[in-house]
Amino acid sequence: MNIRDILDSLKKGEMSTEEAEKALRLDYVDKINDHTVFDRGRRIRKDIPEVVYARSKAPKMVADIAKRVPKDGYLLISRASREHYDAIVKEPSDNEVTYHEDASAISVGKIRAERKGIIGILTAGSSDIQVAEEAKLMAEAMGCRCMTSYDVGVAGMHRILEPMREMLDNGVDAIIVVAGMEGALPSLVASLAYVPVIGVPASTGYGYGGNGEAALMSMLQTCSPGLAVVNIDNGIGAGSMAAMISKRRHEK
Amino acid sequence: MNIRDILDSLKKGEMSTEEAEKALRLDYVDKINDHTVFDRGRRIRKDIPEVVYARSKAPKMVADIAKRVPKDGYLLISRASREHYDAIVKEPSDNEVTYHEDASAISVGKIRAERKGIIGILTAGSSDIQVAEEAKLMAEAMGCRCMTSYDVGVAGMHRILEPMREMLDNGVDAIIVVAGMEGALPSLVASLAYVPVIGVPASTGYGYGGNGEAALMSMLQTCSPGLAVVNIDNGIGAGSMAAMISKRRHEK
Amino acid sequence: MNIRDILDSLKKGEMSTEEAEKALRLDYVDKINDHTVFDRGRRIRKDIPEVVYARSKAPKMVADIAKRVPKDGYLLISRASREHYDAIVKEPSDNEVTYHEDASAISVGKIRAERKGIIGILTAGSSDIQVAEEAKLMAEAMGCRCMTSYDVGVAGMHRILEPMREMLDNGVDAIIVVAGMEGALPSLVASLAYVPVIGVPASTGYGYGGNGEAALMSMLQTCSPGLAVVNIDNGIGAGSMAAMISKRRHEK
Amino acid sequence: MNIRDILDSLKKGEMSTEEAEKALRLDYVDKINDHTVFDRGRRIRKDIPEVVYARSKAPKMVADIAKRVPKDGYLLISRASREHYDAIVKEPSDNEVTYHEDASAISVGKIRAERKGIIGILTAGSSDIQVAEEAKLMAEAMGCRCMTSYDVGVAGMHRILEPMREMLDNGVDAIIVVAGMEGALPSLVASLAYVPVIGVPASTGYGYGGNGEAALMSMLQTCSPGLAVVNIDNGIGAGSMAAMISKRRHEK
Amino acid sequence: MNIRDILDSLKKGEMSTEEAEKALRLDYVDKINDHTVFDRGRRIRKDIPEVVYARSKAPKMVADIAKRVPKDGYLLISRASREHYDAIVKEPSDNEVTYHEDASAISVGKIRAERKGIIGILTAGSSDIQVAEEAKLMAEAMGCRCMTSYDVGVAGMHRILEPMREMLDNGVDAIIVVAGMEGALPSLVASLAYVPVIGVPASTGYGYGGNGEAALMSMLQTCSPGLAVVNIDNGIGAGSMAAMISKRRHEK
Amino acid sequence: MNIRDILDSLKKGEMSTEEAEKALRLDYVDKINDHTVFDRGRRIRKDIPEVVYARSKAPKMVADIAKRVPKDGYLLISRASREHYDAIVKEPSDNEVTYHEDASAISVGKIRAERKGIIGILTAGSSDIQVAEEAKLMAEAMGCRCMTSYDVGVAGMHRILEPMREMLDNGVDAIIVVAGMEGALPSLVASLAYVPVIGVPASTGYGYGGNGEAALMSMLQTCSPGLAVVNIDNGIGAGSMAAMISKRRHEK
Amino acid sequence: MNIRDILDSLKKGEMSTEEAEKALRLDYVDKINDHTVFDRGRRIRKDIPEVVYARSKAPKMVADIAKRVPKDGYLLISRASREHYDAIVKEPSDNEVTYHEDASAISVGKIRAERKGIIGILTAGSSDIQVAEEAKLMAEAMGCRCMTSYDVGVAGMHRILEPMREMLDNGVDAIIVVAGMEGALPSLVASLAYVPVIGVPASTGYGYGGNGEAALMSMLQTCSPGLAVVNIDNGIGAGSMAAMISKRRHEK
Amino acid sequence: MNIRDILDSLKKGEMSTEEAEKALRLDYVDKINDHTVFDRGRRIRKDIPEVVYARSKAPKMVADIAKRVPKDGYLLISRASREHYDAIVKEPSDNEVTYHEDASAISVGKIRAERKGIIGILTAGSSDIQVAEEAKLMAEAMGCRCMTSYDVGVAGMHRILEPMREMLDNGVDAIIVVAGMEGALPSLVASLAYVPVIGVPASTGYGYGGNGEAALMSMLQTCSPGLAVVNIDNGIGAGSMAAMISKRRHEK
Repeated sequence: MNIRDILDSLKKGEMSTEEAEKALRLDYVDKINDHTVFDRGRRIRKDIPEVVYARSKAPKMVADIAKRVPKDGYLLISRASREHYDAIVKEPSDNEVTYHEDASAISVGKIRAERKGIIGILTAGSSDIQVAEEAKLMAEAMGCRCMTSYDVGVAGMHRILEPMREMLDNGVDAIIVVAGMEGALPSLVASLAYVPVIGVPASTGYGYGGNGEAALMSMLQTCSPGLAVVNIDNGIGAGSMAAMISKRRHEK
Repeated sequence: MNIRDILDSLKKGEMSTEEAEKALRLDYVDKINDHTVFDRGRRIRKDIPEVVYARSKAPKMVADIAKRVPKDGYLLISRASREHYDAIVKEPSDNEVTYHEDASAISVGKIRAERKGIIGILTAGSSDIQVAEEAKLMAEAMGCRCMTSYDVGVAGMHRILEPMREMLDNGVDAIIVVAGMEGALPSLVASLAYVPVIGVPASTGYGYGGNGEAALMSMLQTCSPGLAVVNIDNGIGAGSMAAMISKRRHEK
Repeated sequence: MNIRDILDSLKKGEMSTEEAEKALRLDYVDKINDHTVFDRGRRIRKDIPEVVYARSKAPKMVADIAKRVPKDGYLLISRASREHYDAIVKEPSDNEVTYHEDASAISVGKIRAERKGIIGILTAGSSDIQVAEEAKLMAEAMGCRCMTSYDVGVAGMHRILEPMREMLDNGVDAIIVVAGMEGALPSLVASLAYVPVIGVPASTGYGYGGNGEAALMSMLQTCSPGLAVVNIDNGIGAGSMAAMISKRRHEK
Repeated sequence: MNIRDILDSLKKGEMSTEEAEKALRLDYVDKINDHTVFDRGRRIRKDIPEVVYARSKAPKMVADIAKRVPKDGYLLISRASREHYDAIVKEPSDNEVTYHEDASAISVGKIRAERKGIIGILTAGSSDIQVAEEAKLMAEAMGCRCMTSYDVGVAGMHRILEPMREMLDNGVDAIIVVAGMEGALPSLVASLAYVPVIGVPASTGYGYGGNGEAALMSMLQTCSPGLAVVNIDNGIGAGSMAAMISKRRHEK
Repeated sequence: MNIRDILDSLKKGEMSTEEAEKALRLDYVDKINDHTVFDRGRRIRKDIPEVVYARSKAPKMVADIAKRVPKDGYLLISRASREHYDAIVKEPSDNEVTYHEDASAISVGKIRAERKGIIGILTAGSSDIQVAEEAKLMAEAMGCRCMTSYDVGVAGMHRILEPMREMLDNGVDAIIVVAGMEGALPSLVASLAYVPVIGVPASTGYGYGGNGEAALMSMLQTCSPGLAVVNIDNGIGAGSMAAMISKRRHEK
Repeated sequence: MNIRDILDSLKKGEMSTEEAEKALRLDYVDKINDHTVFDRGRRIRKDIPEVVYARSKAPKMVADIAKRVPKDGYLLISRASREHYDAIVKEPSDNEVTYHEDASAISVGKIRAERKGIIGILTAGSSDIQVAEEAKLMAEAMGCRCMTSYDVGVAGMHRILEPMREMLDNGVDAIIVVAGMEGALPSLVASLAYVPVIGVPASTGYGYGGNGEAALMSMLQTCSPGLAVVNIDNGIGAGSMAAMISKRRHEK
Repeated sequence: MNIRDILDSLKKGEMSTEEAEKALRLDYVDKINDHTVFDRGRRIRKDIPEVVYARSKAPKMVADIAKRVPKDGYLLISRASREHYDAIVKEPSDNEVTYHEDASAISVGKIRAERKGIIGILTAGSSDIQVAEEAKLMAEAMGCRCMTSYDVGVAGMHRILEPMREMLDNGVDAIIVVAGMEGALPSLVASLAYVPVIGVPASTGYGYGGNGEAALMSMLQTCSPGLAVVNIDNGIGAGSMAAMISKRRHEK
Repeated sequence: MNIRDILDSLKKGEMSTEEAEKALRLDYVDKINDHTVFDRGRRIRKDIPEVVYARSKAPKMVADIAKRVPKDGYLLISRASREHYDAIVKEPSDNEVTYHEDASAISVGKIRAERKGIIGILTAGSSDIQVAEEAKLMAEAMGCRCMTSYDVGVAGMHRILEPMREMLDNGVDAIIVVAGMEGALPSLVASLAYVPVIGVPASTGYGYGGNGEAALMSMLQTCSPGLAVVNIDNGIGAGSMAAMISKRRHEK
């Protein structure tokens, strides 16, 4: 019920002044975040799944949150262990609960089948796959298909060119590149591709800067145009950025 | 001349084996970066201007680089001082040379008038304007129009909502948000907008973390979906990322 | 016995010069910390409970300290595990020993029932609750009532406004805000509320700056007036600061 | 005009539905920040002066901002140089413009004479005085009187006790303590005083940690109850926190 | 088959144009990394073993990689545990699998017996031996013999001079020096020896800088000529650099 | 046998030229560290026990080192666990092996009973005792008696003055002060005492700077004369510095 | 007048109770810092000169401080420029004012001629001389003679041994070693000498760790017994520690 | 005169015992650094020029050092300004003094013409040239020829392949690669070349990690075999390492 309807009802006497005032007051709080201009955004935003970061949460706490997901709702639980999964499935639920081992994540509910956009995801090494899979889950939940090619490293350049060619031929909206160590791959991809690239530093490496800082710094220092980054190991953030780019492209 | 042409010429005897071999060999080096699959990319890439970072370069060195810009070429010189500009214009040139004071940048040559995409640029404070203007120059050079709204801070929320509404109504492809201090604005914008947001930490602030590190960390830690960042004060990077998103959107 | 009494006793001959000298000498050491001007302070200070940080202490060491709490005394043991609790209750005690699971803390003895001040406590996420509960225990031990509202995040602004309105309506003396990740909530609260705000960075977050440094930096960089911070996860410090503000307000 | 008035006017026919809708719509944006519950806050907030950080701004930019201060308004310009001052006074103004040399600050307009609260300000060294004076200006602008005692160091304890006694006897609402080097003074004051203490690390020191980091860390690590901190050299922040505590105490 | 052969076959009609084109196209990808000028390099590069960093990989993942090593191939698995080894040997293999306990590494396959160069390896303490042994395995796999002398410390200079004399007398091509703590040994060796020295900071030490940072910084700050460094604990990198120096010396 | 003796023997024919040359050559290596000028130093140095840092060493490796201690020799093993102790005592030994639980250290052999100097050791908290006990063991092994007073904190100044007075009255040669958190105690002691003070930062604390960095920085920033520091938790270093000061004082 | 005198006067009627009480009260504040046990310390402490750090102070502020030095008093002004000196000597003074160019320091007043102890001071490079000279000034002001040997580097060991031998032969009480870059010299000296060594990291160096951090870390990580450090470039601190060691040694 | 000669002279009576003893004693100090085993090293070491770092030294101090260079000696003065040069040439000298503007260095004396080895030097950008030229000067002074190719960046791979091919064809002993920003070039070169590569991080870059830290970290994190690094901007260190590799190769 919008303002006009309330005012009309009031004028017509279908609503008392008190009722109208209360309706408008309640409306205030709701409207703060979703001002009319954000209407279209709200429709889009419905596709952004709620995400819970499980690492610092006890299995029971996560299970309680999972229980509150409404039927036909969707929740993504990142950095989740088997213990988190076991705690969730112990209780009956209307929603399908899946443990995505590669991504160390749990999904509660189902994402819709139809997907418009398409995202490419590359990793430099095999240790970066979990972060890539987390990004993939997020992008899928936001309505994208994902093409992945893992462990393309920097050792041999043809290992990178082949999957990039395929991704570009398939018309990807954006490419996510996960890389630890010196984190050079995203810059290389951004210097060759003609699509936006999202770099994800991975916390794999040795000694000085080996917890992902070297990779983060490298990506931030890049000379390649069309590259932006998210935080170390933040697959969720990369997935959501790529999907947002994709959505904006396809809604036109 | 592609491989098939060379082979045909060889077979027809229009070319000796030596000539064919040399043609193919020369072709190698050229092909390394622009493998056939990157053809379309190359067309797009033509719009990415060469950028020179002037701060650590002497005026003469910059002037020498500027002199080499071909007629109808385009070069963007970032973090440039009046001294750099004076050194450039001292010499005759076929290209128009402009000093963009707000962006502390120099452009050599002209960008084409027609622009397809549209980028929104917001800054938290008035100290962040230079970075925003640098981003704007870059995005324009890559074929985008820019809507800007500076100094919207976080002091009063309506100061943010108004320009955001306008940008969204105009159909921006992406929004760049420059912020120093605690760097909270990009997260706020990303939580409200339904377009990809690029955060640019600015090196304005006090004491601990005041050189842009607090802002960078905040943006990397964001909970808002659809936000990625570039390095501190890196207007060029933000502009190129936003324009790349825009290009990809409009080329479809 | 104060100086005047000693001098009078000496003059009256009820005390020898030696006795008087010794009494005054002993008095020296006592007086160093509680100079007469701090008399009122001392009365107030009696309400500041002794706090022991258990994390780096063996259960036995903590139990020994707990045993020394006098009847009607009070001791707060922070960052305590079940093992610490078990070690304490194994021995008979005149004091009630309670394990506060939410706060990972143990209290030995009872706080008085009557409480004058009132403190509001907000957390951004559910992972920050332990720190908030620790702050609450401390503030209560110093004679304050606490209103808490956890997990109000920054996702939706109405989730913040409601509890803030209630706290302000109840006349809170100060508000404690616990936040990890980008740590933006305390700044937001301080920009809206008209009471002093104490920010507590929480060690929840991802990658770069994720151990609470991003949150700490953000809070220190704040533009909002009326916000000061304590160290990462330092619930005890926040509770004592808020209670001190409250005490000072109500003693007038 | 509040919602009820609008609704009444509509019902009485004094206002058309369109007019009522528009009035309510306009009301939305205004209300976002100053929801009715914040009414009292708004009255208090009127005393919080606008503050502009001049260091990274050109004299002309600062003068432009100063020119916009309405008659009877008030603006505090921190970290301002003589050049900033000269640029401001070059233009005619309705407001008194004062250069506060000790605080390296400029005030535009006058603060009201009557002041309720009282704040104590201590500095460890003579190099910390500028920060203290900045805090003093801010606290005064928010309606407090300030008692200051500078350079009390940690060399001799009686140099600290005397001014503290005097401040406590005068009933200060809070004490601000500015200290560089090892930053031990705020902890000492907080361990002795029975009022809230705000520590301000100053960027004075040697070598490792000498830019204020040692002082900041020390204050954050304090064992003394009732101490919270603001950022390095942030006199404005300390002044506003102390004044907020004071206001809350006296409005009761 | 090289370009000329393809062209000749085409001209002679032994190959169709299509076949020739395809052969050349396939050739492209191969040639990207091993352009004709790198031919000699390729022969040398065959001696550089593939290395897998096991620490962040599950035993099964490592076993899968090990299984793919061709007969007569060679793979070095660094930072490997017994669990990794057990997972590998559980499956039948054509290659010899060895667990090198001192180096915490596994080798799959055999290195050739004949070795040309000779590398000296010194460690400051007994805790640095694992890193040294890792370097030794790598250097051996690249065709070098190694002379080692461990725990020569800095306590007594003659403990260093004796092994250095012996190494130099045996004509070592380069010396690797592993050192934790203050990391002074590589500088000392480089100031005395007349061969290139590779410093490896080890993550042994106390408190501030004790994770290898002090050693890394010291080595980077060295005044001794002829010293370069690899990352903390990076025995593989040190071994490969030393062996590369050795190879280049002996191939002449 | 010194140079002169060798030359005399040669001249007298008691030694062949070859024997003389060899004796002189052997002498070279020995003399490098203990040039004649260091003779007195060598006598003093005999009291400096060999110290082995056990943390990063396997029990067996430590036991092997312990076995090599000659009868009447002495070895101190720091940061040793029960497992290290068990491995050592499993084998028969001529030396007494003692596990010093408070110091987490093992001594092999006996120190001589007679001790000349006297060292004072203070700790701020009870968590710092292990470091203090390690310092005590080292100082005792170098011939000093130790007076200790633990957990004197900064809470009440009389808790510090009493033990300090006693130490000074007993004529201590130096005072070691161990402190974590804000690390203020060493500065306070150095400002009051008239003996050299050695500060030892302890790795106890919260959040930012809580691993001993705040304490280290504070001590390095001290304004108190006569204070120098060793690394975080480095009891061995503090003990050896204090004992060296003591030795130098008493050898006069 | 001590307590006993006051009590006697009271008893004899030479003083009223009020007068006695006041005398005792006044005595309190004085006694806080110089409790009877610190009497001997106070005598020694008279030799510790007041030191003012000039760098962050305006010439006028420093001149004002200098003016307050009583006749026969002594003040050391460190990190002072010619401007500071000029401001001081512009005004008439009872004290001799000297600019010590090598130490960038100013002394106001004279130190006494007779000096008991003797301190050795070494520097690794010629850039470290200013710090060494500052240490020398401080040690001299505290009654020590200094033997200096600068730029002994680590390039050739005999350059170090010669001056060390001479210092030891002259019976130095302690040796100060100033070193930038990798900061290895203090460890080397401490491993050879049998006197306490004070390491001073100097802010000379390249790139990573080049502002003195590498040197500080190295010294803190030292394996040599009998070495403690002061902050980067802190000549004053090193001089006062060395002199305190010397005083304690000679007062016996 | 070696030991044997001295002994023979003594035995033959050509030398007194006193003379022999003195000759041997003098020999001690000399021998410490150049033990007989280092004889060959000494011959090689004669080619290592003395290097003085001018940045932190006054022109006069540098001129004094330059004056002491013996005829036919050689001194390299790095990071030298025109002022340093002017101060040197103001005084008459036997040696040729040259200001190398590109390297910001001064050479005093001449290097010998004949050069055996050959070193390749690449830079990523034009800002890195000074560091490269410094490396070149050092390598030349140690007897190497240098092939340089500057500003090959990472923008287009053929720009790198061409100069690399040429360097390899000319038989370079080692390649120095200078790179700022993300510092990816050395890794790329090391992955393609079959010669040892020395990476030099340059202090060119933006914001976070922009002072060379990102480049340093990247190079240390490299996966490419045969790459070691020197400190940020340390051209001298890179030149000496490369030349040492070259010398060792050619002396065989």
